[in-house]
Amino acid sequence: MDQFMKMAYEEAQQGLKEGGIPIGSVLVHKGNVLGRGHNRRIQKGSAILHGEMDALENAGRLPASVYKECELYTTLSPCCMCSGTILLYGIPKVIVAENTTFMGEEELLRSRGVEVTVLNDPQCIAMMEAFIQEQPTLWNEDIGE
Amino acid sequence: MDQFMKMAYEEAQQGLKEGGIPIGSVLVHKGNVLGRGHNRRIQKGSAILHGEMDALENAGRLPASVYKECELYTTLSPCCMCSGTILLYGIPKVIVAENTTFMGEEELLRSRGVEVTVLNDPQCIAMMEAFIQEQPTLWNEDIGE
Repeated sequence: MDQFMKMAYEEAQQGLKEGGIPIGSVLVHKGNVLGRGHNRRIQKGSAILHGEMDALENAGRLPASVYKECELYTTLSPCCMCSGTILLYGIPKVIVAENTTFMGEEELLRSRGVEVTVLNDPQCIAMMEAFIQEQPTLWNEDIGE
Repeated sequence: MDQFMKMAYEEAQQGLKEGGIPIGSVLVHKGNVLGRGHNRRIQKGSAILHGEMDALENAGRLPASVYKECELYTTLSPCCMCSGTILLYGIPKVIVAENTTFMGEEELLRSRGVEVTVLNDPQCIAMMEAFIQEQPTLWNEDIGE
């Protein structure tokens, strides 16, 4: 795992410690972290704070030109909401730790010109597999199922 | 304007009073308002609180089955982020006051089975036209341009 995905993984683990859903994300601009975050559905009773959304929210308001030079790291394949947000801001590169436990909108992203790299990281797969097995209801709520 | 779009318009006007971007939204379930909100980019320094997102966040955590019986009212055609969120939760009906000042992802929504109704409301068109003319930089920031 490279340093940024490691950071996203640490965010996910932090979420787990808080009793939350273990998905983390980091927004990187030219090697600098602008924002990092994790899913806060449980912690904040939030319907919209997926890991990627939390990282973007923590980065705060940025000019469009900055997003267009960013990379977004995420421990899990981004759902429709997070993918739509990636498209809104024109983030050109998304690095996904895994899409084994959940397949997001990677094809939509690619069809709009986003470069999506999937790492198939065994640690992230194991983390989500364990979580989904332990908390299936919570997981389904998070993906609208 | 029906009662729910009127409420969304009032939310947008509230945003304007707060010095924000005038877009409002209301989530309705079988005739009951579950959440209402407006764009809070300025008010909260938020990158993700578009009107629709704010309404969904204010509605709080809901079971998937509830979203699937909801209607989302919004004063402006929903962008990629908000459309992705509508798809995540499977909201089947979206009522849009206008798509003249901004065309969102209506085609994506329709292609995934969402019923999108556009009202072409002159009051909402005038509200956004005036705002975009007065605050073009802010508006561009909000749509990632």
